[in-house]
Amino acid sequence: MSKPKLASQPTIKRLPSYLHVIENAQQEGKEFISGTVIAEELGLEPIQVRKDLAVTGIVGKPRIGFPVDNLIKAIYRFLRWDQDNRAIVVGAGNLGTALMGYREFNRRGLRIVAAFDPDKRKIGKQFHDTEVFALGQMAAKLKQLNAAIAILTVPSSHAQAVADLLVKCGIRAIWNFTNVKIRVPDTVTVQKEDLSSGYAVLSVRMNLPALVSK
Amino acid sequence: MSKPKLASQPTIKRLPSYLHVIENAQQEGKEFISGTVIAEELGLEPIQVRKDLAVTGIVGKPRIGFPVDNLIKAIYRFLRWDQDNRAIVVGAGNLGTALMGYREFNRRGLRIVAAFDPDKRKIGKQFHDTEVFALGQMAAKLKQLNAAIAILTVPSSHAQAVADLLVKCGIRAIWNFTNVKIRVPDTVTVQKEDLSSGYAVLSVRMNLPALVSK
Repeated sequence: MSKPKLASQPTIKRLPSYLHVIENAQQEGKEFISGTVIAEELGLEPIQVRKDLAVTGIVGKPRIGFPVDNLIKAIYRFLRWDQDNRAIVVGAGNLGTALMGYREFNRRGLRIVAAFDPDKRKIGKQFHDTEVFALGQMAAKLKQLNAAIAILTVPSSHAQAVADLLVKCGIRAIWNFTNVKIRVPDTVTVQKEDLSSGYAVLSVRMNLPALVSK
Repeated sequence: MSKPKLASQPTIKRLPSYLHVIENAQQEGKEFISGTVIAEELGLEPIQVRKDLAVTGIVGKPRIGFPVDNLIKAIYRFLRWDQDNRAIVVGAGNLGTALMGYREFNRRGLRIVAAFDPDKRKIGKQFHDTEVFALGQMAAKLKQLNAAIAILTVPSSHAQAVADLLVKCGIRAIWNFTNVKIRVPDTVTVQKEDLSSGYAVLSVRMNLPALVSK
């Protein structure tokens, strides 16, 4: 296998959907899957699929396609989903508790091991088997549970203060579901998630499809 | 004001984050905001911000910037968030109920007016003031409530069957949170949302930042 290649964010974002298609093929007992089949399933160009999958280092055979088992393993490896990615949720509100119960994450190596919330009524409660702790317990708990990722689902007005606390407690990555751009040291990875983005595209596409270019 | 311009999906996806920054400036009493300030706030290139905002038809003045009130109105208008976008949630599970309670949507013209679930124990219940109905009531309810968008949060194994039902009931757009690519007539807009995509990028960036290109 060749060494890992540089990948763009759009490529990485598409890998999970490829994984679904390839895993379905595996469940159907298929040993090989072609880039064309994956492309058709997802409404993409075959050349795009082949280019994206090249980052895994797995090479398809002409007319046969990619070896299913190896390709699945290589995608997991590339995404670092083959390791235990331990995470905490900060903000046990609607979105936070929903993410705790989102089973897809478990299958992808993301293990939510604790939640934190300032609300005393929530502390000690469990949501989908995840216990809620006080913010003051964060430093000790993060160390004990060896969690490197924080999923940030607090109200936007609290986002920066909570991010500062997370940094102080030694967090390595923050998945930011708030509306705020948070400021952290360069050593901390921040990934922003905005549910309004998808809604924005849907809204323009359904009302004025001619306005949206590729 | 010039007529609406063609916009790419990445441009449309960035507009909601611009809106947050510009609305904050408005709350601080500012009349103008420069592309450079927006860019700094979001960690983007000023040229990108100016190019993106051009789709709204609002032109910034050199050294003064964009008129805040007009720019906010123009973004709302461009995204069709100035109208009532009535939606239903299909699948009142963890994610579905969380989305019903996601207040940000309300501010952006997305009004969730009903939920549907096959589980009899959920029917008649309310989550965040949204009532859950049986799937069999969908055709009548959609017409009565004049909802054009379905937010699909059913288990992936049910996604296509429910999408077929939605199409039969005359839905115009489906915001698909399942793992499945659903097949619908060309007249129905489908926007796929995959929470694993953001996690994939986070995972690679935190573990192997050198692998991720721009």
